[in-house]
Amino acid sequence: MEKVNLLEKFSLFTEHWQPKIVGELNDAYVKIAKIQGEFVWHTHANEDEMFYVVRGQLTLKVEDRELELLPGEFFVVPKGVKHMPVAKEEVWIMMLEPKTTVNTGDVQNERTVADSPWI
Amino acid sequence: MEKVNLLEKFSLFTEHWQPKIVGELNDAYVKIAKIQGEFVWHTHANEDEMFYVVRGQLTLKVEDRELELLPGEFFVVPKGVKHMPVAKEEVWIMMLEPKTTVNTGDVQNERTVADSPWI
Repeated sequence: MEKVNLLEKFSLFTEHWQPKIVGELNDAYVKIAKIQGEFVWHTHANEDEMFYVVRGQLTLKVEDRELELLPGEFFVVPKGVKHMPVAKEEVWIMMLEPKTTVNTGDVQNERTVADSPWI
Repeated sequence: MEKVNLLEKFSLFTEHWQPKIVGELNDAYVKIAKIQGEFVWHTHANEDEMFYVVRGQLTLKVEDRELELLPGEFFVVPKGVKHMPVAKEEVWIMMLEPKTTVNTGDVQNERTVADSPWI
């Protein structure tokens, strides 16, 4: 039962595309990640996923649209909707998603992280 | 399917203790509220509740503890745990909680808001 300071948590790691769990509530995890470059197009069949930007500018490709998210902005990708995060420069994001969510959804590749660690 | 800018949403209202819905994912709502003063001690029997501070300093009384949350900090109040938010000066918070959550939990009083509006 401790409070979580996001910037403090972000200061503990430098690697990209490796989500860390910083909280849990009900059936969901609060995760943070540093990302840079392109991810992979994927879909979560049963899980809505929230992306909240803490630092930097996130391009979120969502089906045929492209959203630009700045710090203090979020977007919820509905279940079943194909999406791909892209970060031209490094971006720090907070995500909220069911505990069952795998980062690459229906795709399995070298970016897949099935079990994120707590930080 | 639009992105949400938190500060923009906060600019749309001034009243205290009246949560507004700004997003939904899975079985949860993302809500924001401006608060000032003391709330009421209450408990959510079945719902964990996340408090994230956007502006100001939130005192979160949690059972026999008192947490001070600053912008960029959050705390998850586990289900069944008595708590009371207190804001000496105005505080802007984002909350994440199941759709079934009533703001005053097991308590029914003039602060109770059963159905928060979307904003």
